[in-house]
Amino acid sequence: MLTGENERIKHNKRIEKMEGILYGIGVGPGDPDCLTLGAVRKIEESDLLLLPQEKEKCYAYRIVKQAAAVAEKETIVLSFPMTKEKAVLEQAMEENAKVVCDLLKQGKRLAFLTIGDPSVYATYMYLHKRVQELGGKAQMISGVPSFCAVAAKLGISLGEQEEEIHVIPASYEVSHATAYQGIRIYMKAGRKLEELCEMLASEQKERGKQGEELQVYAVSDCGLPGEKAMYGLEELKSGSYLTVVIVKIVKKMSR
Amino acid sequence: MLTGENERIKHNKRIEKMEGILYGIGVGPGDPDCLTLGAVRKIEESDLLLLPQEKEKCYAYRIVKQAAAVAEKETIVLSFPMTKEKAVLEQAMEENAKVVCDLLKQGKRLAFLTIGDPSVYATYMYLHKRVQELGGKAQMISGVPSFCAVAAKLGISLGEQEEEIHVIPASYEVSHATAYQGIRIYMKAGRKLEELCEMLASEQKERGKQGEELQVYAVSDCGLPGEKAMYGLEELKSGSYLTVVIVKIVKKMSR
Repeated sequence: MLTGENERIKHNKRIEKMEGILYGIGVGPGDPDCLTLGAVRKIEESDLLLLPQEKEKCYAYRIVKQAAAVAEKETIVLSFPMTKEKAVLEQAMEENAKVVCDLLKQGKRLAFLTIGDPSVYATYMYLHKRVQELGGKAQMISGVPSFCAVAAKLGISLGEQEEEIHVIPASYEVSHATAYQGIRIYMKAGRKLEELCEMLASEQKERGKQGEELQVYAVSDCGLPGEKAMYGLEELKSGSYLTVVIVKIVKKMSR
Repeated sequence: MLTGENERIKHNKRIEKMEGILYGIGVGPGDPDCLTLGAVRKIEESDLLLLPQEKEKCYAYRIVKQAAAVAEKETIVLSFPMTKEKAVLEQAMEENAKVVCDLLKQGKRLAFLTIGDPSVYATYMYLHKRVQELGGKAQMISGVPSFCAVAAKLGISLGEQEEEIHVIPASYEVSHATAYQGIRIYMKAGRKLEELCEMLASEQKERGKQGEELQVYAVSDCGLPGEKAMYGLEELKSGSYLTVVIVKIVKKMSR
């Protein structure tokens, strides 16, 4: 009985301390080969998986199940509304954070799966911050960001020597970005592809006058079965919603 | 004899075709947990490892040997002069490319190890391009770039929603970068840390007048035993050569 009592006291202390931990795990852009050793281990060691969507629909889960033993793992679906409205997002995150903190109080190790890397445009970060504010432990596990996989697919570098790399969320206003020197990466360009193509075509003309040339590359559905690499503005027009566009400025060769 | 003759013909064809393949493998920033499943497999399946330095000194090799079976693997050291001079680099790469192509003609699978991701400021890309120009096959295997591991260590995001991410090689001229909106990542800032700190201090003042605030974060020696996270300009001054600095601009809270 004394042992039982001790156990109860320890358990209560664990509750006060929120002894569990939340891992925000980057699972890479799609190919299960891009999963890191650490991600697989943390996922397999976790008590349960937190997903932004039902298992069957969840892209991150579909990547993970090809490489990690998760078939028997309990899952909980959190609500991540697809919106740019901060108030709506914040309310959903508040509710998610409560769910997470309740689990942390039970000492659970939680693996939240997120596409790419958790530091690069992942909605997970709201949850991370809020859980920490509420006194819970949270840790990010790095993954390969999609733009690295896109560069690998294209066989090109994103930056060499003095070149700067500019990552631009293309579903927002992007016209100012033509002023940047170095390489531009337009993320989630799909919905504004037509607009982006027009902008790049007119930049192409302007650059031409200055003896420069735009090199345009893109990959649609990177890591998915329909993955497609595109070279040049003409090909880009056929990109899908999940398109990453890379633009380099090069000096024209004198002939 | 006929079989032998056929073998010889096949062998010659293989030579003409350069049937081997060069993999440029990103091994992540330092922690062997950041190695991807694909990287480990490609390394273990390779016939030999290409290293930019002797095994014992090679940082990438030291990461890999903690997680992959490479003890028995043959290694070849290529010459990568640490210089910004393109002519010197190009000559070294020309020689390296010849070594690689000779091995590809023997049908070898070669694993070139590179820190972080091969598309992000990796000298490997010179070799990649040159080998392809000479008719050899080369493929990039993505890794976790150092700035993602740095963000994970700090527990911060690099970009959310409309925020842009600017990666700036800090050993070059960087003063123009204060004009960028969004988040700035200064890579290899170590040698110019003092200069960078002065610049950020004076930017801090200017931003203050506009109701804005600079948030400065940094990590030295990410993934190494001496790894250190730094918060704020004061702490930054003690960074080592291998320091990644992250700067965010935030609106000051009205009190």
